[in-house]
Amino acid sequence: MITTIAFDADDTLWHNENLYSITQERFKRLLAPFQDVATIDQRLYATEMRNLAFFGYGIKGFTLSMIETAIEVTDGRIGAREIRQIIDFARDMLRAPVELLPGVRETIASLSDSYRLMIITKGDLFDQESKIARSGIADYFQHIEIVSEKTPDTYAAVMKRHGIEPHRFLMVGNSLKSDILPVVEVGGNAVYIPYHLTWEHERVIDEGAIAGRYATLSHISELPSWLARLPAV
Amino acid sequence: MITTIAFDADDTLWHNENLYSITQERFKRLLAPFQDVATIDQRLYATEMRNLAFFGYGIKGFTLSMIETAIEVTDGRIGAREIRQIIDFARDMLRAPVELLPGVRETIASLSDSYRLMIITKGDLFDQESKIARSGIADYFQHIEIVSEKTPDTYAAVMKRHGIEPHRFLMVGNSLKSDILPVVEVGGNAVYIPYHLTWEHERVIDEGAIAGRYATLSHISELPSWLARLPAV
Repeated sequence: MITTIAFDADDTLWHNENLYSITQERFKRLLAPFQDVATIDQRLYATEMRNLAFFGYGIKGFTLSMIETAIEVTDGRIGAREIRQIIDFARDMLRAPVELLPGVRETIASLSDSYRLMIITKGDLFDQESKIARSGIADYFQHIEIVSEKTPDTYAAVMKRHGIEPHRFLMVGNSLKSDILPVVEVGGNAVYIPYHLTWEHERVIDEGAIAGRYATLSHISELPSWLARLPAV
Repeated sequence: MITTIAFDADDTLWHNENLYSITQERFKRLLAPFQDVATIDQRLYATEMRNLAFFGYGIKGFTLSMIETAIEVTDGRIGAREIRQIIDFARDMLRAPVELLPGVRETIASLSDSYRLMIITKGDLFDQESKIARSGIADYFQHIEIVSEKTPDTYAAVMKRHGIEPHRFLMVGNSLKSDILPVVEVGGNAVYIPYHLTWEHERVIDEGAIAGRYATLSHISELPSWLARLPAV
């Protein structure tokens, strides 16, 4: 029997990737006079991957990568005015309203009567805390874990810290790579709810050994009835 | 009787402010052709304070503030080459070796025999985790808390989460504002060990009501004998 349900936050509870997507469109429009958009996309992703070991995930690292890419793809011809606009993009992202996905509020409120709820989210501490605080649903969650990476060890440590046996733990998220695969690997349960956008870095091409070891739902509102149909072991 | 000792990390366990200080010197040399150094210092600090609500603490936010300041103080005349150098400063900071302060390793090792040790540090999750991992002393600490701000509520929540009564809790740090004042305010004990550099934002001018309610030591090695002299209540 599942006693604890942990939710990923970005693109599981509220929209996030669309913010990056909108910003990346603005970025490409800004650089369109210098370079074709496909090249800009490729170079930005390459810069992000190269910088991940230094900057980690989050808007600030993304912004530094945009600035660096802008300098690279324009051979240094980018102006100070454009670079300032890129920093403005960052501030716009950081103060964007937190938009809950449809059905989130009702589902979370209802599940909180019967389960211990947690958030396990990856990214920038400051930004994630700010979004959780502004979400209006923070009080439904008994524990909030903001982590720098979501590996099997990360999940094992969270379960150990809160005294949760893996078979009583369910993770719900939109990333096979970060929310599903590592949880299944340490014996936990996982429900995958895809978001319509997935950052390239989070894509899993080959599900391999985890295929069939998690459930896929198309919408968070389906979660209560999915839980109700589980055998009460 | 104190049972738990929590340590701030930056400038308490290892050097940190000197990295910012060195980088700020490099930044001023870079902009020296455009503006006098006192103005650069003032404008950078003003930009940092303005951006704190968006970016929080840490190297990435500092770097975005440096770039913005560079554009401002040069009236947009700064070149892409210089901005790329500022991003290189960030990478240099993020990969700088973690240099323990003198006496830290021995003191921490010795205290870990008799006390539950914690780290409570503020800043960027990714960078702080990386420094803790590279410090070589992580295993002495039973809990590591990386927080976005150090307020009285922050400390009260940490104590509650770990079931520590405030009078059994000791915080050791180099910032009156972040490590001492808020801890004393919630009934905990505090030892202030100044570092030779203090970021302007962390300075407390008026100690007010907390004067005399914490101890000051000049060096972390003095901590065990200070603890030994406490009344065993």
